[in-house]
Amino acid sequence: MIYCSNCGARVIEKVPEGDDRPRHVCEACATIHYQNPKIVAGCIPEWKGRVLLCRRAIEPRYGLWTLPAGFMENGETTEQAAARETWEEAGTRIENIKLYGVFSIPHISQVYMMFRADMQNADHEPGAESLEVRLYEEHRIPWEKLAFPVVRLTLERYYNDLGNNEFPVHVENIMRHPARRR
Amino acid sequence: MIYCSNCGARVIEKVPEGDDRPRHVCEACATIHYQNPKIVAGCIPEWKGRVLLCRRAIEPRYGLWTLPAGFMENGETTEQAAARETWEEAGTRIENIKLYGVFSIPHISQVYMMFRADMQNADHEPGAESLEVRLYEEHRIPWEKLAFPVVRLTLERYYNDLGNNEFPVHVENIMRHPARRR
Repeated sequence: MIYCSNCGARVIEKVPEGDDRPRHVCEACATIHYQNPKIVAGCIPEWKGRVLLCRRAIEPRYGLWTLPAGFMENGETTEQAAARETWEEAGTRIENIKLYGVFSIPHISQVYMMFRADMQNADHEPGAESLEVRLYEEHRIPWEKLAFPVVRLTLERYYNDLGNNEFPVHVENIMRHPARRR
Repeated sequence: MIYCSNCGARVIEKVPEGDDRPRHVCEACATIHYQNPKIVAGCIPEWKGRVLLCRRAIEPRYGLWTLPAGFMENGETTEQAAARETWEEAGTRIENIKLYGVFSIPHISQVYMMFRADMQNADHEPGAESLEVRLYEEHRIPWEKLAFPVVRLTLERYYNDLGNNEFPVHVENIMRHPARRR
């Protein structure tokens, strides 16, 4: 941020009075421009024991596999955001949407909210951001070709919980250099 | 948003190519300025069967009672944000922090993430945004003087679950005109 989005003057970085960290501040119009973490909402779409993954058609991690997920929009609920992203990226409608994971990634200021969900039917097709979309059985999951640590973590927790048939909400943090667990 | 924070030119509102909703777009430098929901992190601080509430020293809802909560900052985890806000507003340190509620409020583009937590000791004191801070027993909760619907909802779920001694994670939405339940 270089210019004030309110008046167009140049902003400076300083700690506002009564605050304890630097912000982008406009001294011309006195606006403080706060920046806050973003929510990424997504899901594990389930269909008859299989899970739907998308192969990314965009950077970063072009060509690697991911769960459908993306930035939550203003005016949505978290479940609506997860369902919209699943429709946009994987061309499938979901229902019975249950919170499954809240994963903070502080070094990129993102919070993933991952849900489990049932696909309404077997239909699926790649959206503009996907090269292909495919239903995977557990033993065929492409563990070495997953796009992001949060996708691996979500799927690891999922298959572990599937063994116990209990799905608590996982609240975890992903730090900058996660130890590889698999 | 009137001016581009990147180059200072005036922005326009339009649907970018490949997108499906209007954004603030700078045609001078081609930056798309996305706006996304904010996370409000807070907690129910517990001490020997009582709950710590803060009376607001700021607008909106000056003088009304709330749970400690505030906007999550970049670089934090959700638990860190809840603990920081509790320290800033109520002057108490918490531990054993467990996710309890995820409440979307789409008409103001906020997602509350409320935790249950134990106070480390009985110490508490009002921070700059609080007039006073007080430990409440259930029958003394000032239900008619709570600041926000999300505070009421969180405390209602909490006292209901306390009766069963089971605290599932609640995922709910608060719409523009909530029916009063109490």
